[in-house]
Amino acid sequence: MVEPQQDIPRWQELERLVDLGDVDQVRAFLKSIPLGETAYTLVRMEESKRTRLLELLPPEEAADLVESLSDAQAADLIEELPAERAAAIVEEMASDEQADVLAELKADDAEAILARMDPAEAEEVRRRARYPANTTGGIMITEYVAYPDHLRIDDVVCDLRLNAAKYSPYDLQNIYVVAGRTGQLRGIVRLRDLVLSPGSTALTAISLTDTQSVKVTDDLDRLEDFFDRTDLYTAPVVDEWNRLVGVVRRAHVQEALAERAGKTILRLSGIVTGEELRTMQIKTRMVRRLAFLVPNIGLNLISTSVIAIYEPILARVSALMIFLPILSDMCGCSGSQAVAVSLREMTLGLVKPAELMHVLSKEIRLGVINGLILGAALGTITWLMRGDTYPYLGLVVGGSMAINNVLAVCFGGSLPLVLKSFKIDPALAAGPVLTTVTDMGAFFFALTFAWLMLYLTT
Amino acid sequence: MVEPQQDIPRWQELERLVDLGDVDQVRAFLKSIPLGETAYTLVRMEESKRTRLLELLPPEEAADLVESLSDAQAADLIEELPAERAAAIVEEMASDEQADVLAELKADDAEAILARMDPAEAEEVRRRARYPANTTGGIMITEYVAYPDHLRIDDVVCDLRLNAAKYSPYDLQNIYVVAGRTGQLRGIVRLRDLVLSPGSTALTAISLTDTQSVKVTDDLDRLEDFFDRTDLYTAPVVDEWNRLVGVVRRAHVQEALAERAGKTILRLSGIVTGEELRTMQIKTRMVRRLAFLVPNIGLNLISTSVIAIYEPILARVSALMIFLPILSDMCGCSGSQAVAVSLREMTLGLVKPAELMHVLSKEIRLGVINGLILGAALGTITWLMRGDTYPYLGLVVGGSMAINNVLAVCFGGSLPLVLKSFKIDPALAAGPVLTTVTDMGAFFFALTFAWLMLYLTT
Repeated sequence: MVEPQQDIPRWQELERLVDLGDVDQVRAFLKSIPLGETAYTLVRMEESKRTRLLELLPPEEAADLVESLSDAQAADLIEELPAERAAAIVEEMASDEQADVLAELKADDAEAILARMDPAEAEEVRRRARYPANTTGGIMITEYVAYPDHLRIDDVVCDLRLNAAKYSPYDLQNIYVVAGRTGQLRGIVRLRDLVLSPGSTALTAISLTDTQSVKVTDDLDRLEDFFDRTDLYTAPVVDEWNRLVGVVRRAHVQEALAERAGKTILRLSGIVTGEELRTMQIKTRMVRRLAFLVPNIGLNLISTSVIAIYEPILARVSALMIFLPILSDMCGCSGSQAVAVSLREMTLGLVKPAELMHVLSKEIRLGVINGLILGAALGTITWLMRGDTYPYLGLVVGGSMAINNVLAVCFGGSLPLVLKSFKIDPALAAGPVLTTVTDMGAFFFALTFAWLMLYLTT
Repeated sequence: MVEPQQDIPRWQELERLVDLGDVDQVRAFLKSIPLGETAYTLVRMEESKRTRLLELLPPEEAADLVESLSDAQAADLIEELPAERAAAIVEEMASDEQADVLAELKADDAEAILARMDPAEAEEVRRRARYPANTTGGIMITEYVAYPDHLRIDDVVCDLRLNAAKYSPYDLQNIYVVAGRTGQLRGIVRLRDLVLSPGSTALTAISLTDTQSVKVTDDLDRLEDFFDRTDLYTAPVVDEWNRLVGVVRRAHVQEALAERAGKTILRLSGIVTGEELRTMQIKTRMVRRLAFLVPNIGLNLISTSVIAIYEPILARVSALMIFLPILSDMCGCSGSQAVAVSLREMTLGLVKPAELMHVLSKEIRLGVINGLILGAALGTITWLMRGDTYPYLGLVVGGSMAINNVLAVCFGGSLPLVLKSFKIDPALAAGPVLTTVTDMGAFFFALTFAWLMLYLTT
């Protein structure tokens, strides 16, 4: 996504225009920025100028700008603004974005903004905030069109045309058919069927009735499932009495899924307590990284306790000191490969948390084969390097590599399943737990074998 | 996604029905499987029965089944079939799926199938295969409706209704307006505008003309950009003469993006030469894992060479042997946090590969602060554990932790940018390169400081 550098970077030009304070020029320039570049331009601006920009624009346009950012960034920008102004902007945001952004703010900042919003809007946001993130309630939008089940196509088309202006911001991929009195969902009519059938047809005749709906409490996996099963662009959301309360867009679900995958990458790499962007305050970034690193000291002390026990052996076979780190790294890598495959298969729904035995049977064979290959390679290298002074070292290193590799892939492969069935996010805990175990294994086998060799040969 | 275990698992029931060979029963049972479960059920079946199943069903239904799987799995299934049958099934698949699945097959298997397909279809697949994966040409579908620019809404609606049956598999979110003679793209008409405007309106009056199109050669990031910028569900694809050649669905783009994120997770964890699923042959899985592990031996020998040099020092300060692995793990973790944040910021388009200095300035401060905190913690622990025998060890360990942490985050933060600007996939190379450097640093600083202390105190 590198683009030809212009002579003067966009954010500087934008800062200049903001200083001039001519809103039309600013508007025109913002339009000229390709949307993929907006976030980049904004984060590069001086904080004061960025604030100035959001105060210069009319709230609805500022809201568009904020919506073009990821939640974490959007929250960053909002936080810089006076609550009064922030409220005005948040009010203009789409119903599904408001809660997401406020959720990223400190509780009292969010409250300060809600307090200054139109009470009805604020109540709606609070209602959404009650749904855990990534549930249907949090993703759904409340802009949709529904008609009672006794109407015909012409009635609907006529109403749509009459209120074209009103409906233009709505999602019209589907219109929904509800029971006149109760408001319970009766069926879904795809806009295309509305066009493809004669006007006298009854809505009920062209509505899909077999398609299920999603519940307001359903989670992301359930939504993914729903859209896997149909070609619909939007899903009707019902409450526990099967009354239509909103719609979820396929696009929003896929965004949420991509977002989750992105977060998984961060978690796997030790950013565990929420997103980190380099635009955030250094204090936040510091705490978020230490949250993973500090506990990790403890895990390391556990794994190296094995070395402490065997210290005298190590002192006598000092060459091992070169190979212990190699063993621990190699087995760590083997293990995380198995972890990744399990995570992937769980995402694709190919394995269930209960199927430990299935995974083990698949991993153990591979672990043995690769263990032997890697063990042979590493053993030979060791023998070539240190065979003269420690004739047996090759066996010790190669042997521990082979055995610990089997342990690493079996443990790595099953760990995500176990964590999942204990409702722990595998991406969060798998890494550190894995390396602790594989390190202990590596140190234990190598040092025990070395001790045996010393014992047998002296 | 765990579901209540039935008394008999679905795949066994399906195997039973396949043995009975009653296609209607099989059909009915397949319908009863929630789509999220189909992949799981298929991979659990015995290979012979699975083949039998795909031969039992009419090709178009077998194709639906295959399309419900990820490309890698789909290819697995197709590979099990006789080429004749495989060709019949592939012919029935959606135009965008065919190339993806064949791409996963061994070249000669793919050829064998193409040779048995309808020549026109085969040519189309070959044409697509020429586009690199994840370019517009590979993702677009060729089922769309376009009308010459002199028509009115009524003409179009009338044509749509007349050919309702023919168009039903098509994507009708938008219809496209093209110049009568040249076939060049003139505009996009959203289905909703077709419904919301009176029938006498000219197509050109309701068509969006400002919206750009995408080129058949555009890559995934460009497509993501396009859909970020509009609310359209499909994008028109044009060739170099601006003639309409296909359409890309927002949903397909988002699937491709999610797929890419999934692959990134695998790459980061050392599955680098293509997806691994446990249903694949063990030989494939073995090779794919070793492709990462074997080179990794070399990198380890490089990093541990530092220890080899300092072996005599280590022999005299044997307690260091406990803390070297801790240092190397802690700094490795610090580094991969920085890698992850850079990857994330690049995905969100917040940093450009050229901006090394920007990243360094952000990482160095954090590196110093966290380095001091972690160094103090680790130094104290060391002193408490070994202060009696090695009074200076706390300083050695704490000091190296502090300094190497700065090195780790700076190197880790900039590595993805550097790799990217060399057109190397960061997810592929960042991990191993990082740990090699952080390990060398950890060993070098700790052992050098230890040597200094010995030198000063004796």
